[in-house]
Amino acid sequence: MTTDAAYARLTARAARIATIGEAAAMLGWDAAAMMPPGGGPARGDQMAVLAGLAHGLAVAPEVADDLAAAEAAMAADSAADPWHAANLRLLRHGHTRATAVPADLVEAQARANSACEKVWREARRQSDFAMVRPHLAEVVRLVREQAAALAPKLGLTPYDALMDGYQRGIGAADVAPVFAAYEAFLAEALPRAEEIQARRGAPLRPQGPFPEAKQEALCRRLSARAGLEPEHSRLDRSTHPFCGGIPADVRITTRYDEADFAQSLLGVMHETGHALYERGLPAAFARQPVGEAAGMAAHESQSLIVEMQACRSDAYLAWLGPQLLETFGGDPAAYAPANLAGLWRRIGRGFIRVDADEMTYPAHVILRFRLEQALVSGDLPVADLPGAWNEGLQRLLAITPPDDARGCLQDIHWFDGAIGYFPSYTLGAMAAAQLMNAARRDVADLDASLAAGDLSPLVGWLRARVHGMGSLLGFNDLLMAATGKQLDPADFQAHLTSRYLV
Amino acid sequence: MTTDAAYARLTARAARIATIGEAAAMLGWDAAAMMPPGGGPARGDQMAVLAGLAHGLAVAPEVADDLAAAEAAMAADSAADPWHAANLRLLRHGHTRATAVPADLVEAQARANSACEKVWREARRQSDFAMVRPHLAEVVRLVREQAAALAPKLGLTPYDALMDGYQRGIGAADVAPVFAAYEAFLAEALPRAEEIQARRGAPLRPQGPFPEAKQEALCRRLSARAGLEPEHSRLDRSTHPFCGGIPADVRITTRYDEADFAQSLLGVMHETGHALYERGLPAAFARQPVGEAAGMAAHESQSLIVEMQACRSDAYLAWLGPQLLETFGGDPAAYAPANLAGLWRRIGRGFIRVDADEMTYPAHVILRFRLEQALVSGDLPVADLPGAWNEGLQRLLAITPPDDARGCLQDIHWFDGAIGYFPSYTLGAMAAAQLMNAARRDVADLDASLAAGDLSPLVGWLRARVHGMGSLLGFNDLLMAATGKQLDPADFQAHLTSRYLV
Repeated sequence: MTTDAAYARLTARAARIATIGEAAAMLGWDAAAMMPPGGGPARGDQMAVLAGLAHGLAVAPEVADDLAAAEAAMAADSAADPWHAANLRLLRHGHTRATAVPADLVEAQARANSACEKVWREARRQSDFAMVRPHLAEVVRLVREQAAALAPKLGLTPYDALMDGYQRGIGAADVAPVFAAYEAFLAEALPRAEEIQARRGAPLRPQGPFPEAKQEALCRRLSARAGLEPEHSRLDRSTHPFCGGIPADVRITTRYDEADFAQSLLGVMHETGHALYERGLPAAFARQPVGEAAGMAAHESQSLIVEMQACRSDAYLAWLGPQLLETFGGDPAAYAPANLAGLWRRIGRGFIRVDADEMTYPAHVILRFRLEQALVSGDLPVADLPGAWNEGLQRLLAITPPDDARGCLQDIHWFDGAIGYFPSYTLGAMAAAQLMNAARRDVADLDASLAAGDLSPLVGWLRARVHGMGSLLGFNDLLMAATGKQLDPADFQAHLTSRYLV
Repeated sequence: MTTDAAYARLTARAARIATIGEAAAMLGWDAAAMMPPGGGPARGDQMAVLAGLAHGLAVAPEVADDLAAAEAAMAADSAADPWHAANLRLLRHGHTRATAVPADLVEAQARANSACEKVWREARRQSDFAMVRPHLAEVVRLVREQAAALAPKLGLTPYDALMDGYQRGIGAADVAPVFAAYEAFLAEALPRAEEIQARRGAPLRPQGPFPEAKQEALCRRLSARAGLEPEHSRLDRSTHPFCGGIPADVRITTRYDEADFAQSLLGVMHETGHALYERGLPAAFARQPVGEAAGMAAHESQSLIVEMQACRSDAYLAWLGPQLLETFGGDPAAYAPANLAGLWRRIGRGFIRVDADEMTYPAHVILRFRLEQALVSGDLPVADLPGAWNEGLQRLLAITPPDDARGCLQDIHWFDGAIGYFPSYTLGAMAAAQLMNAARRDVADLDASLAAGDLSPLVGWLRARVHGMGSLLGFNDLLMAATGKQLDPADFQAHLTSRYLV
């Protein structure tokens, strides 16, 4: 434990900034889950004022001096605690990011993103790329400026400087070969999996309606059983399900379809994975950067290990089937574990990323990863995006979107200025498979516990190896410590092989 | 419209402070209506940080210079807009209040109030005044220091300086004769009203259970019908019903008792009155002090004019009865307007303020008004409070609490440091009667519209005379402009006479 005064001032400031961020997180949840529409404009002002206050604290002139003094003290302290050392590095990193981009560029980006996103909604509705093209061009122009400002300060390439904003510790040079390997795997695996699936025939579909109240009660029960404590969490509804709030008070949301309970049930387990990560972060470093989750890819690994690895496993489905039958009634055959597997592990080539199965999902991400690098480098002019999109999807999945609404207009990310985020989805999926393999190795009878509907051995392992590690390690180092190797797509491919190719 | 630069800086700062206050208001609502218990400690930190940021902006050194410059410019401007002139006076007033009390006293009060309030909960449970006495003594000591710091700066007596924090524009010297007159009225009216009521016999009690979902749907319908727009409001549950949020996004709460729908229904109409006030505040002065509600007594007048004056009127009950019968079913006689009047306009002497009827409620307030003045002046030592309470209640209502839990321990206010607030309740009740009289004079067929379940003519009148006036006028001036006279207890007494004594 360091007692350096400069470091103490920095951590007090970080806690203050993080506490403002907590208020903003709660208001963000409220905006999505509770707020009546008339509250929107005022909420926008509230968020902007809080962001401005936090930014002002982060870039105050005295921070640079404190950082230098604390770094000198830490360097001179041969017994420096690695957590505090990492925290100081992250404080420096955050300060570098916060001060690298001029305030007028930040403001111009906020305006351009907001304007573009509004037009995008209409452009997607009308499937009219030309309508949003000039706005997207402006967004991309400003993102390139932002990346150019960040890159030299961070010692990263411009694209990696953007990725770093979502997931520290992994860059395009790490990701590209992993994705290339997956592309090769997919080219062979997908047709075989489709053939196997076709031979099996269609699964039975449970017959609804499935009353919302029953779905909700079930979701609450399964989420609590997975370890999410009701005294530290809420489950509500929102158009786009998400996990928000703060570690002591996590707010997850879902939506209900009375014709199909799978969306809410699997969605809630996905968000429960995110929520358990937040709950398990190291409390001793709450409101410090080293106490935060390790990044978006790490976060996605936690939602996917619960949803995809655990809850869609044969073992868990064997336990879940009877629960579903008891909850909803109907034809028992529809709730047989093998039938549930047929329903919930169905693969197929589609245009829409968010509807994709776990095997084809990475193809959507690989496409976007390549296109956004080309947008940032300037190799791909915005005007050429629809064509490049369609060519890319054809190459990866051998399908071509019938229109841009089902092509390059489908996701909000780029139109909202979020470039560098997409890889996190697939890095998370791969990390989830790799972590699950390691957990199976380390935890005796992991599948037996899943077959009893008990996630606690898995969650306990994740708590020690991932949740409780906060941001002590970067993405690859976290995987190395937990699994003995850096990100390795082989585990994910092995998972898909055993699930879809045998 | 003034274009003075100093004034512009002050209003920009005020808007920023108010926006932080909006964030805090939303988080306060969330804490009461949504937050799981585990979120409590972090929420406390969030509220403290937001309060600290707002306070820091309010007392920044440059504000004093800007105030002086803006006041000089306003004084030199013969065509100064009265709204901006009032706004500047209120900005000065707020600055005086914010800077009058030393920061270490503010902090000591926050700590003492919080500690006392915690002990009070247990002391009330055990009806043990001695347990909380030293804590209350400390709270009172600090409140006296606060009042002594505020009084000379505001040019008010110490007690009035505290009252001013809740309701500007009226002081103890105005209130004392009004309350004395009421005490005299009550001494004669209460026995007569009790006698009349006894002759009538007991009303029929509608037989439940009344399902929560039905109660909630009815509450939503009646609240919306009274003018509260769902696109700018929410109705939720909380242990202690309240009206929170912000003008564009009002959040009201209630609680449901399946054995009795009156609590939720009348409670929601009460909160709807508060909410309509917030909704009707002058949008052109949003986030400026002159655009805020005129004070707690003014606010209470708006909840009570809706709940007590309108919704418990013969006219409205005549419309409501059939709605209730249709909603809940059962014996039609229980929903006859005269029976509802018998149920919901029942008077009686009791120990508990929050359960009191509208005739005896002021007695509870008068008692507290006198005791809190004596606490602030030092005439009443805290140790003598239970005895003084019991003597006072005996004098006012001729009853003596069997224990302190039903005596001086019943309300949180003093134990939480809120001294000077109690008069607002009865000032609001009196103002509500006075405003209703004026509305009846100004609005043709007001009772006919109530008999059609239509509050819009009343609410429209209130919007023009009260809601839309913001804080342009002080309490008495607001009443003068709306009703042609300052606060006059005669209207309230006439209301009670016509409702209970004929």
